[in-house]
Amino acid sequence: MDFDRALEEKIEYTESCIDRYLPREEGFAKKLVQAMCYAMRAGGKRLRPLILSETYVLFGGTGEAAEPFMAALEMIHTHSLIHDDLPALDDDDQRRGQKATHVVFGEAMGILSGDALLNHAYETALHSFDLAGSAEEISRAAASLQILAAKTGIGGMLGGQSVDVDCGGNAADGAMLEEIYLKKTSALLEAAFMIGSVLAGAAPAETRAMEQVGRKVGLAFQIQDDILDVTGSEEELGKPLHSDEKNEKKTYVTLYGLQEAAGQVERLSKEALEILRGAGRNGESRDFLGELIRRLITRKK
Amino acid sequence: MDFDRALEEKIEYTESCIDRYLPREEGFAKKLVQAMCYAMRAGGKRLRPLILSETYVLFGGTGEAAEPFMAALEMIHTHSLIHDDLPALDDDDQRRGQKATHVVFGEAMGILSGDALLNHAYETALHSFDLAGSAEEISRAAASLQILAAKTGIGGMLGGQSVDVDCGGNAADGAMLEEIYLKKTSALLEAAFMIGSVLAGAAPAETRAMEQVGRKVGLAFQIQDDILDVTGSEEELGKPLHSDEKNEKKTYVTLYGLQEAAGQVERLSKEALEILRGAGRNGESRDFLGELIRRLITRKK
Repeated sequence: MDFDRALEEKIEYTESCIDRYLPREEGFAKKLVQAMCYAMRAGGKRLRPLILSETYVLFGGTGEAAEPFMAALEMIHTHSLIHDDLPALDDDDQRRGQKATHVVFGEAMGILSGDALLNHAYETALHSFDLAGSAEEISRAAASLQILAAKTGIGGMLGGQSVDVDCGGNAADGAMLEEIYLKKTSALLEAAFMIGSVLAGAAPAETRAMEQVGRKVGLAFQIQDDILDVTGSEEELGKPLHSDEKNEKKTYVTLYGLQEAAGQVERLSKEALEILRGAGRNGESRDFLGELIRRLITRKK
Repeated sequence: MDFDRALEEKIEYTESCIDRYLPREEGFAKKLVQAMCYAMRAGGKRLRPLILSETYVLFGGTGEAAEPFMAALEMIHTHSLIHDDLPALDDDDQRRGQKATHVVFGEAMGILSGDALLNHAYETALHSFDLAGSAEEISRAAASLQILAAKTGIGGMLGGQSVDVDCGGNAADGAMLEEIYLKKTSALLEAAFMIGSVLAGAAPAETRAMEQVGRKVGLAFQIQDDILDVTGSEEELGKPLHSDEKNEKKTYVTLYGLQEAAGQVERLSKEALEILRGAGRNGESRDFLGELIRRLITRKK
């Protein structure tokens, strides 16, 4: 398998799914939609929808059932980025190498476009009921929606962000920092792995195993983010460097040092790959996801 | 029927439904949940869940199917109030006679608790799948979720708010102002009337008729709001008076004058009551909803 070519093709497919579910930049609330689409089209790795789609195939899924959820997950992720960058939160002017949404459209529209993307994620995911042809498919769509909402909410991403904000980026200790990372970053990745498996009809134990993969990959991903904020280059990252230091944020690197952080990323990745090795039924998807996870560890941006 | 006693009982029931679906103020994201509950417990008319519940009964609904949607609708409404009050939007320090959420919990937590309430609304409404016992009930829950999302999003409340913000509260003309009101205020009331009827198994034409009731009541309600901002008392309203004037907002009153505004409220209310007269099958609920709408016209706060 040529991973790079496969990745390119799959990202292209992912982009087309996302694009299909973006609202039209016309009509009464045109400016709002423009702000939403500006943020959505700013690029990014499309990691979450890509993982969702590939996990769906891993467990034997075919057809378009995963597509509304792929777009929805990316909308929720983008919603969190828009609001994260707001002056009252991280106060970042740049995102993905371009001006942050609130810088271009104003703070009020930044808030509202983030709200609207969160809501549009549900509007989009609810299309899955229109695609569902059987009671079983409806039931899988409903379960997937419940996972999406739970991993986004208080017990997931938003809960993590709120604690991060509340402690001013200064977690009391390593355990609290890890909990923030698990909620803030792992939760949506868990949703990607879980929803992909649920929509394909995987058994509950299989979905729980995939949740663990998401948990470990998310934590590794976030620690790698901390490492890159110290060792990366601003050009490659497309965002200001040393922002953690600037904002006096406690990170995995400031707590444990670079070496221990790197070791932790490797350990978590190995554990995730170990679980993945026994999962699903499509060998090609398994290999692809494995390589994707490996690349996340060694990524430079 | 003693309307006041019935209203009191029904509001009590509504409050208990809302309360049951509020998140617990404990655990990792405690502060976030406290901010959410602070805003939810600040009172308010509970108009939307009350209408949803009563419309459900009007069309013969029994049991608890409407309850998750009642709570969800109030959460979405409260989400919009929290974000509306933020410094970057209306910059209001008070809401429902107490300090606005962002004043008590800080601006960042104001943004995040609004986000979390919007998300929790979906988490809550999705419980309806756990209550549904038949394919028909699942299908009604799915349709209701789609209405909820559509009326909240770009084509509804958030779309209306965004245009209102974008024009700085200065609609170009009466048509634009009306469109803002229809999206900003009518949309969630339409959702209340529609979801109540859908969950009870009303025919599509009946649900469309109820949407019209919501549309007219919402518009009347918003125009009445404009009237009260000029003629009301600060104590009764529990919020600063003449805020429209202060913010140089164009309202129905500034555009057409008090008399024309009052006439329009009466006309819209009559039309809504006319549609209601032929709707549903429960006479007691029909009478109750009719009186509720009549009171909204003549309300002083």
